Amino acid sequence: MRSQDENGRANHEAGMAGGEEMEMVEVSSEMRRRHQRPRKEEAEETEEPMSVEQVFEGKRVPGWREQLTFRAFAVSFVLAVMFSIIVMKLNLTTGIIPSLNVSAGLLGYFFVKMWTSVLDKAGLLKQPFTRQENTVIQTCVVAAYGIAFSGGFGSYLFGMSETIAQQTTELNDAQNVKNPKLGWMIGFLFVVSFLGLFALVPLRKIMIIDYKLIYPSGTATAHLINGFHTPQGAKLAKKQVKTLGKFFVFSFLWGFFQWFYTAGDNCGFVSFPTLGLKAYENRFYFDFSPTYVGVGMICPYIVNISVLLGGILSWGVMWPLINNQKGKWYPADLPSGSLHGLQGYRVFISIAMILGDGLYNFLKVLLRTISSFVSVVQKRGATSTLPVLDDGSPITTSPAVSFDEERRTELFLKDQIPKQVALGGYVVIAAISIITLPHIFPQLKWYYILVAYIIAPVLAFCNAYGSGLTDWSLASTYGKLAIFTIGAWAGADHGGVLVGLAACGVMMSIVSTASDLMQDFKTGYMTLASPRSMFVSQVIGTSMGCVIAPCVFWLFYKAFKDIGISGSEYPAPYAIVYRNMAILGVDGVSSLPKNCLTLCYIFFAAAILINLLRDLAPKKIAKFIPLPMAMAIPFYIGSYFAIDMCLGSLILFVWELINKAKADAFGPAVASGLICGDGIWTLPQSVLALAKVKPPICMKFLSRNMNDKVDTFITSLS
Amino acid sequence: MRSQDENGRANHEAGMAGGEEMEMVEVSSEMRRRHQRPRKEEAEETEEPMSVEQVFEGKRVPGWREQLTFRAFAVSFVLAVMFSIIVMKLNLTTGIIPSLNVSAGLLGYFFVKMWTSVLDKAGLLKQPFTRQENTVIQTCVVAAYGIAFSGGFGSYLFGMSETIAQQTTELNDAQNVKNPKLGWMIGFLFVVSFLGLFALVPLRKIMIIDYKLIYPSGTATAHLINGFHTPQGAKLAKKQVKTLGKFFVFSFLWGFFQWFYTAGDNCGFVSFPTLGLKAYENRFYFDFSPTYVGVGMICPYIVNISVLLGGILSWGVMWPLINNQKGKWYPADLPSGSLHGLQGYRVFISIAMILGDGLYNFLKVLLRTISSFVSVVQKRGATSTLPVLDDGSPITTSPAVSFDEERRTELFLKDQIPKQVALGGYVVIAAISIITLPHIFPQLKWYYILVAYIIAPVLAFCNAYGSGLTDWSLASTYGKLAIFTIGAWAGADHGGVLVGLAACGVMMSIVSTASDLMQDFKTGYMTLASPRSMFVSQVIGTSMGCVIAPCVFWLFYKAFKDIGISGSEYPAPYAIVYRNMAILGVDGVSSLPKNCLTLCYIFFAAAILINLLRDLAPKKIAKFIPLPMAMAIPFYIGSYFAIDMCLGSLILFVWELINKAKADAFGPAVASGLICGDGIWTLPQSVLALAKVKPPICMKFLSRNMNDKVDTFITSLS
Repeated sequence: MRSQDENGRANHEAGMAGGEEMEMVEVSSEMRRRHQRPRKEEAEETEEPMSVEQVFEGKRVPGWREQLTFRAFAVSFVLAVMFSIIVMKLNLTTGIIPSLNVSAGLLGYFFVKMWTSVLDKAGLLKQPFTRQENTVIQTCVVAAYGIAFSGGFGSYLFGMSETIAQQTTELNDAQNVKNPKLGWMIGFLFVVSFLGLFALVPLRKIMIIDYKLIYPSGTATAHLINGFHTPQGAKLAKKQVKTLGKFFVFSFLWGFFQWFYTAGDNCGFVSFPTLGLKAYENRFYFDFSPTYVGVGMICPYIVNISVLLGGILSWGVMWPLINNQKGKWYPADLPSGSLHGLQGYRVFISIAMILGDGLYNFLKVLLRTISSFVSVVQKRGATSTLPVLDDGSPITTSPAVSFDEERRTELFLKDQIPKQVALGGYVVIAAISIITLPHIFPQLKWYYILVAYIIAPVLAFCNAYGSGLTDWSLASTYGKLAIFTIGAWAGADHGGVLVGLAACGVMMSIVSTASDLMQDFKTGYMTLASPRSMFVSQVIGTSMGCVIAPCVFWLFYKAFKDIGISGSEYPAPYAIVYRNMAILGVDGVSSLPKNCLTLCYIFFAAAILINLLRDLAPKKIAKFIPLPMAMAIPFYIGSYFAIDMCLGSLILFVWELINKAKADAFGPAVASGLICGDGIWTLPQSVLALAKVKPPICMKFLSRNMNDKVDTFITSLS
Repeated sequence: MRSQDENGRANHEAGMAGGEEMEMVEVSSEMRRRHQRPRKEEAEETEEPMSVEQVFEGKRVPGWREQLTFRAFAVSFVLAVMFSIIVMKLNLTTGIIPSLNVSAGLLGYFFVKMWTSVLDKAGLLKQPFTRQENTVIQTCVVAAYGIAFSGGFGSYLFGMSETIAQQTTELNDAQNVKNPKLGWMIGFLFVVSFLGLFALVPLRKIMIIDYKLIYPSGTATAHLINGFHTPQGAKLAKKQVKTLGKFFVFSFLWGFFQWFYTAGDNCGFVSFPTLGLKAYENRFYFDFSPTYVGVGMICPYIVNISVLLGGILSWGVMWPLINNQKGKWYPADLPSGSLHGLQGYRVFISIAMILGDGLYNFLKVLLRTISSFVSVVQKRGATSTLPVLDDGSPITTSPAVSFDEERRTELFLKDQIPKQVALGGYVVIAAISIITLPHIFPQLKWYYILVAYIIAPVLAFCNAYGSGLTDWSLASTYGKLAIFTIGAWAGADHGGVLVGLAACGVMMSIVSTASDLMQDFKTGYMTLASPRSMFVSQVIGTSMGCVIAPCVFWLFYKAFKDIGISGSEYPAPYAIVYRNMAILGVDGVSSLPKNCLTLCYIFFAAAILINLLRDLAPKKIAKFIPLPMAMAIPFYIGSYFAIDMCLGSLILFVWELINKAKADAFGPAVASGLICGDGIWTLPQSVLALAKVKPPICMKFLSRNMNDKVDTFITSLS
């Protein structure tokens, strides 16, 4: 789920993947050549397990142009409209957006399958439906409906309007207000939404191949898509697909079952105080989310442990200690979500740590790229097409290249997107943006935007790196950072509120798109989709989104007169939250509670230090040093998802103890099933919410004392 | 759990068992002789699976006298005192008594094991600890602490006292009051508690061997005890024990986990409206009880289906229909538990159906016994020691005799308890009872008791038969029947209330002991314990109980002055319930609601008819005809346990589809683990309750409307 709130849940990017975890026997290409691997049919008779790409070996991978079919984009368009409507309605009602990415993959498959089946029966089918095409659809739909979220129709963009401004007491002058209009909204989205794509494209090899980042829900959807397209007769693969299907169904039904008990706030299994009420208050509980159990099974142990450590350090130690300073460090009478209070520490310390880690890795990558470039220039010709592989991967320690990895890497590097195109694209679009945006928002000076665009790639890197590790996209957090820096820079007298909100939009769009793109690249990597076709698909999808999303919003805005008015049918709750943040933000860092900035510096430095230690310590020790990026995420979200993930780890660990081969072969299938089933359930759940079908029962958790009072109250009613 | 309430839960009789389900390869004795079965060691090398008794074949079965050791009874005495205190305190506080039988088996094992280990190290051990001895301890403890329940210290016996009488408005004259005194209580228990033992002893062969009744929790504990004593080196058996252990731990921890969420009434997983609130009101829900899931796995499919059918027929159809007649058939303003209202239909229709089934089977057994006796006399000498095996078993259809069955039957029939002893014992004790009881209760005329003792064996048979099928002992129901017949017979003017309560005691004691005994016989059968040693152990245990239970009660009664006063620490809630029932009872059947008696006749006849059909129809059809006894039990308890059991069936069914051999080998182990783990958890749970450690959280289920109201209420508090 995504959320415009601080407690937002992860953005499950579900593209496609195939999983290096899936290989049971690591067959290096050299071995293959020497031993003359038996043909597929023989292999099955002798029950030799095959890796995913061995199973798919007989299938031709279409060229990147062939992957971009008309039918794919037709289907994508239909799905994009559908999902945009769903997301928009949720934007304007509850503000909590589930991830529909798995649904995109699944529905994409069924739509095109229907299409091709009909044509096939009519004898008109020219091109078979491939998994690459499926990935292209999924990518396009995700890019398109992503705009409905990152466009801020329920948050920053609508927060600029008069409707919202009138609900606040301060700074609602004309300078700080801009009412929605179809024209400028489409224009704004077009100039900000493409930058994210270009910003990180050059780094895809580093993220996917060198760093071997996991992108858990991307990997999961890849398993799903690979499963759909598994050729007939592959035994192990069929078994894996069956396992995936079983856990998919389980996870889906579990989501459905849970739904019945969520009739109110804090109802249902998601609020289960599994470790007691005291721990629940500090967000330590198991929330019965199959998604994060699955994510925990896919992520390396060190990620899960880091997340848990981070949770214990923050929610277990730091926040309670800071809470004791209530009244001293910050006023005691603040509402619980105020950034002036405890929430401020949570958000900004978390950002500081993420920035520290991100900056370190960004610089490291930069240095390596330069040095490898220098060495390529020096030994011209020696290493030509294949760039030098990064030697030190931060996560996986074994550099053994399996058959799957080799084949995937080969195809991933075949269709290059020239660095000049990426860099040129970024500069051109940034220039257009810098020229255009001040026309839309006169308060937003060109140099604000310039600075934002200089910093943005680092933040985009941070977010893509973090979501690669833990599946959480924290786009809205980076948006808040922009509010607090650029808004403050402009100041209250120069339309700082509007500037803050606009800057938030610029930053969120870049950061959100960048992590989406990288998740999709992971999926593409695992389904042998060409990066070039993926990129084109993203560009087309984003263009669709820039038109569809504002139009859908406009429809709502014109059809329902009371949009944004609290208590109405469409209160758009986060619009006012964002505006309030921008109002606070104009005061800048001075509005932060006491010692918050100092703590931020400390954690920023700690993140860099820990990374240095990881790189300098001997490998034996380094692999036990936690990852600061992973530690920082529970800092403001809470530890519940860390507990889910650790449970996933534990399950895998025990399974590996009992039967290593089986765990290796079926673990990713189980994890993917759990993630995808839960993901698909969000679709009917959203539809139910839109149709106003409410769950009938609340499963409530009360302390004994409170329960006695409630029982007395209930008795008094009847 | 047992309960003195109408909604009482099953009396899990946990003796010992070994499971005819456990055999993987059915080896008839003839085959063995022909093929010269490989010796144990060889068998293991070749991985040939062995049945339980094949594993134990090398162990000598001690003679029945050797099974009765001093240490066994010493340990039993200690445990009996401990459990009696626990049960008594629960009697006087909540009135709901969990089954501690598994705990008895487990603690018995550990105590004696410690004892023998110490002696063994000192070199003083003369006799090794055998599973038979373990069974003897378990039997003795169950018999002893059973009296603390069936003695009625929280129900009928204490219901006679002045303390309770003063809390009711009617019939609290001296004639209907008898205050507790240590002397008469011990006397009363001694004259009524032994009858149950003698009543059913002659029928044990028919119940255990011919009818192959399941006695689920008895079977489960037998698996546990067999597991404890499995000889070294038996591979499959070890694996089964490991499986049992795993599910034992799971079930125990689950019980523990559940406990935290039960801070009030209708809290926790036992009140989970799994199928919706409407279904929950009609007691259709899955209550997450591992016990009944395990029971469902052990019981044959037809039992589970019958139970579910009965639940649907009663709670799904009949009760809602009768409820519509509220105001016409019975007054609308009755409290929900009143026997004048809907509850009356539930209790008495259920009893009628059970009686119909029981009577039919009792007569059938009687006829067969006579005819076999006649044929034995005619063909004197032809069939000597082994009586003719019953050909038509009502439950299992395959008469194939496996190695285990053969060996168990052989030992079960070795040590006979002569029919003359059983019959003579019954007559003598009945005579003593008829003479003595009117001295204790002058209102209780000798002919009431005589009639009770003539009917009692049939009711005891019904209860033993029913609990053999479904694990539910309905002793308190038969007690109510006695209140309503004998109490009414005496009438209000002749101390009918006291007569009713005393008759209730007589009946409950017999019926409860009889089913306990039969459960133990099943356990003994499966652990090769001699029926003779079991019987002696029961007699000794009962004697212990007749002294321990009143003494423990006396201690409480003297130590705490406000026992029985509602609102106090020891309210003994069911004492007043039983007295009120007796007050109603003096009016007899005329106090039943309209048409109740007619419906009772119909269901009584239907039960007989269905049984006739089962016996007369061809076997193919007969096996699909439900069992009336099993159908009747949910009639007043509700369907939730039926749903648990059907889930157990379903799990086993699916497992058998996937891997029949594995399901057959490990199904009983899983089921026993589930039952025993839950059973043992009741011990710490009781201790927690006694120590007044209350669970901290209530997991509550509210309808959406109610939840909104409660939320408003909670907000108004803070």
